[in-house]
Amino acid sequence: MILVRPRNPLNMGAAARAMANFGFQNLGVVEPYTPHWREARSAVGAPELLRDAKESASLPEALAECTLVVGTGTLTYRKAEQQVVQLPALGSLVERELARGGRIAMVFGPENHGLSRDDLSYCHVLVEIPTDVRQPSMNLGQAVAVCLYELSSRVFSAQEVTSAPIPVAGGAESSTLPNPGSAVSSGTLELLSGLIEETMSAAGYSPNSMQAANRHDLRLLIRRLGLNPDDTRRALGLFRRILWRLKRPAGRRNESS
Amino acid sequence: MILVRPRNPLNMGAAARAMANFGFQNLGVVEPYTPHWREARSAVGAPELLRDAKESASLPEALAECTLVVGTGTLTYRKAEQQVVQLPALGSLVERELARGGRIAMVFGPENHGLSRDDLSYCHVLVEIPTDVRQPSMNLGQAVAVCLYELSSRVFSAQEVTSAPIPVAGGAESSTLPNPGSAVSSGTLELLSGLIEETMSAAGYSPNSMQAANRHDLRLLIRRLGLNPDDTRRALGLFRRILWRLKRPAGRRNESS
Repeated sequence: MILVRPRNPLNMGAAARAMANFGFQNLGVVEPYTPHWREARSAVGAPELLRDAKESASLPEALAECTLVVGTGTLTYRKAEQQVVQLPALGSLVERELARGGRIAMVFGPENHGLSRDDLSYCHVLVEIPTDVRQPSMNLGQAVAVCLYELSSRVFSAQEVTSAPIPVAGGAESSTLPNPGSAVSSGTLELLSGLIEETMSAAGYSPNSMQAANRHDLRLLIRRLGLNPDDTRRALGLFRRILWRLKRPAGRRNESS
Repeated sequence: MILVRPRNPLNMGAAARAMANFGFQNLGVVEPYTPHWREARSAVGAPELLRDAKESASLPEALAECTLVVGTGTLTYRKAEQQVVQLPALGSLVERELARGGRIAMVFGPENHGLSRDDLSYCHVLVEIPTDVRQPSMNLGQAVAVCLYELSSRVFSAQEVTSAPIPVAGGAESSTLPNPGSAVSSGTLELLSGLIEETMSAAGYSPNSMQAANRHDLRLLIRRLGLNPDDTRRALGLFRRILWRLKRPAGRRNESS
């Protein structure tokens, strides 16, 4: 579970407590507000997993090992750019990802406005907690508790596992179901994304530096494709080759086929 | 939803916010710690339902109109004296009760030790949130959020109702399912309980005042029976008659059959 830019130490503590309640262990924190983060970690009775939390400077860094990234938030004030799943239906998606050896991250945004559009571009799906339209926005600690309860009681209890089983990603087969996320880690997808971007620049398709809007759309596209590890390897190989050809000195361009 | 002796104003606010998030409206508070209760109600942005909450001096008073009383808590430190339902299975019980016109209360205890044994004796069932054995005890605001999410997403969403539909109890048929709770209000059950107690005293079965332990067991028994309104009416009539006979002056005891 990953908290992005959390502000309130009580919420950080509450999120960690909910994780402990429902048997989850790995907490990541991205760009926390440092004084409050220190306060939360040093609080009396702070769960061990809060002290063991991994701090990251950016969301893609925190997500590098994950194969299915689930963003959280309300859609009352925004339009989703990726697949949206209602929380009660998240279990089957998570089960499928675990079955093929995936590693899942649930990402929660800051208290004031939730995950940014940029944060969400690293997510394969967006999960929505079905709240009342008159009061859609939940407290962070309560949203975490509700999501982890759902996963713990629907997925892990069925598997008779009490702590979140997160196997390391292996070479799994691609699912035949539509838009299944991907057993390819976020780090690998970022590598591919960067390589494509570099290729576009080198080809003069996107001169100088790529525009932020294009980079954003490319990230979303790559996650929507549901690439399997073979697809990803091929795509990486192809773009590396293209890039090598594009970057050879002009005089040598016709030497080899 | 009823909070019994809540202490922390943040938790009262969080509980009310979760109710608003999931479309529930009627909040009752029993013996709140007055300064903190005032603080919670007057907080900036306090949900309307917190200001409209009904304050009661005792739990049976708060429950008088309810036909199915669901207590909450962990069983790690105590043995349940009534039926225990795991939260993911609560939906079907609640649906059945609503279908026969019942009125349901979910009761949450104070932050430190949860509902007392005496509080629980007013409950038909005890619901348990399936938490990790190493950290079973949840924060109050989070426990409320998880329970209301479960009911809202499993029961009310299926009925396409966004706010908790709590019809007034009517004369419904008794269910044929085992231990179905009772479409008889808690107030009526308390009346019956008191009448039986009075009868036992008058009969010299429990001389002077009834012992607390007997009263406790009687309350539990009456809730376990799943009496329907007809059963209850008959039982009330029978004990009123017995009591009338027992209390007649000794000299007139053999006058009528």
